[in-house]
Amino acid sequence: MLSWLKYIVPRERKFFPLFEKVSGNLVQITKTLVELVNAPSAERRTELGKEVERLEHVGDNTSHEIFNELSTTFITPFDREDIHDLTCALDDVVDYCHGATKRIALYKIIQIHPGMIKLAELLAKGAEELNQAVLQLKDLKNVNRIKETCVRINSIENHADDIFDMSIAQLFEDEKDAIKLIKIKEILSSLETATDKCEDCANVLESIVLKNA
Amino acid sequence: MLSWLKYIVPRERKFFPLFEKVSGNLVQITKTLVELVNAPSAERRTELGKEVERLEHVGDNTSHEIFNELSTTFITPFDREDIHDLTCALDDVVDYCHGATKRIALYKIIQIHPGMIKLAELLAKGAEELNQAVLQLKDLKNVNRIKETCVRINSIENHADDIFDMSIAQLFEDEKDAIKLIKIKEILSSLETATDKCEDCANVLESIVLKNA
Amino acid sequence: MLSWLKYIVPRERKFFPLFEKVSGNLVQITKTLVELVNAPSAERRTELGKEVERLEHVGDNTSHEIFNELSTTFITPFDREDIHDLTCALDDVVDYCHGATKRIALYKIIQIHPGMIKLAELLAKGAEELNQAVLQLKDLKNVNRIKETCVRINSIENHADDIFDMSIAQLFEDEKDAIKLIKIKEILSSLETATDKCEDCANVLESIVLKNA
Repeated sequence: MLSWLKYIVPRERKFFPLFEKVSGNLVQITKTLVELVNAPSAERRTELGKEVERLEHVGDNTSHEIFNELSTTFITPFDREDIHDLTCALDDVVDYCHGATKRIALYKIIQIHPGMIKLAELLAKGAEELNQAVLQLKDLKNVNRIKETCVRINSIENHADDIFDMSIAQLFEDEKDAIKLIKIKEILSSLETATDKCEDCANVLESIVLKNA
Repeated sequence: MLSWLKYIVPRERKFFPLFEKVSGNLVQITKTLVELVNAPSAERRTELGKEVERLEHVGDNTSHEIFNELSTTFITPFDREDIHDLTCALDDVVDYCHGATKRIALYKIIQIHPGMIKLAELLAKGAEELNQAVLQLKDLKNVNRIKETCVRINSIENHADDIFDMSIAQLFEDEKDAIKLIKIKEILSSLETATDKCEDCANVLESIVLKNA
Repeated sequence: MLSWLKYIVPRERKFFPLFEKVSGNLVQITKTLVELVNAPSAERRTELGKEVERLEHVGDNTSHEIFNELSTTFITPFDREDIHDLTCALDDVVDYCHGATKRIALYKIIQIHPGMIKLAELLAKGAEELNQAVLQLKDLKNVNRIKETCVRINSIENHADDIFDMSIAQLFEDEKDAIKLIKIKEILSSLETATDKCEDCANVLESIVLKNA
């Protein structure tokens, strides 16, 4: 947008509470995920899995609300495709978190792999950072804070990559039961992809900041 | 688009027959897929696999035609990115259907898993709904019919998700041969992803309807 | 773009050297990959793996530079989304090449599968073609050369598909150790997906040519 335009174009404000609802919901999901991988019993794990499921629906509905607003709003606070991409990227993080918990139940996993716990904790950190960045979006004066958040999310993703690589190498070393290996590998993959999607969110946020600084 | 614009902007009509060709072709592919997973012999299955392959090429060429039109047409009947996204999403459904049939041949699958039959049938239903919605596109007066179709596609996708989850849980329970398990799981995944892509199509259709209502 | 516009709109030239840096870097990576899968010793393979890693970072940084330019440049030499899509597609090729080499190390692969060598060689050919097409971008007079390059990339991708399908069919025939099978299959998949992403690059290039011819 031409820089002077921002003083005359009224900015549609209704997107901000919706973004904050999505990012706040993501914080909830990742916290529940951390609790789930540390749960003391299978029963508790089932309960927490249902909570992740419920929160995933909340996220879905809010994303849908954003897409509807986007289709019917002529002026948006920043580029339409950035709103679209940010919504999709946040939704992807949620989906891969949900995918991991679903598989833990579906595959009847009894012993949680230590890599899953570490990745869940990194996801919770990443979600917290994303939420902070989203809260800054409505007031683009704090551009540096958003940029710093993006740097931290990138470093979380790099850390998750290392954890994942080491876990997989170790798994191929130790696990001789191919079916067990497939199960654990797939859950670790879902969690690692969720951290990739956090990085995608950070990239969209950075792009929004650059365009509107 | 500003609502009054639609009365003065000439709408490029040539996209509609191309969309209908793609969605009609998808109906053909999914019908062939249903026939394939129910085929009485390996020979018949091979024949039907070749037919899916042929239809996949037809779809590819038509998508390519749409992209070429899009690159050279200045005024489009709805947003360029929606045309692009709808074409890609329809093409993705085709690709995952084709991927599933290719793997059935490649992996020398002898016994078709019941989950594959159920998913193929859901795909055929989804394709039929998509085709109906696409036929309504050229005359956006029937907005409610398109919306209803999208709702039905979403419910088909949810059903497919449940079928997939149950099939996979059962597979991990019953199948002790890891290599057989990998094969079946991958084909089920392709089919399930194809239903996800149907939902992506429905989302683009919904967005088009919302913008142009 | 309306055809007469190209005579009055100044075109931002700074994108071209960045694209050429990315595509030149991709040529380097695929050459290193070919050397790696043909390396005479595990030590040499490790060295070459580190080189791929280093080049992947170079690619990442250049992509990031392009995105930053895109966010802050008002007039671009061709459609913003095409610049975005081309950058992402080139980056995807790099990522899947890197993913394959990372897995070769991580999974402690001793014997390189012949399919990997063939796919790496096809990737090197595809990267060379892409680089040639990118070099033509800054001067859109040679439209036919870009189109011919795209045709050759498509045929490389089809060839890669066949190699992959045959390798996988053979693997399921010969390899009775499920864990070894998983490892080899995944590396072959990464390489094959890299050739798919080359085709995505060719599609964006074709779209740019069509719009600006």
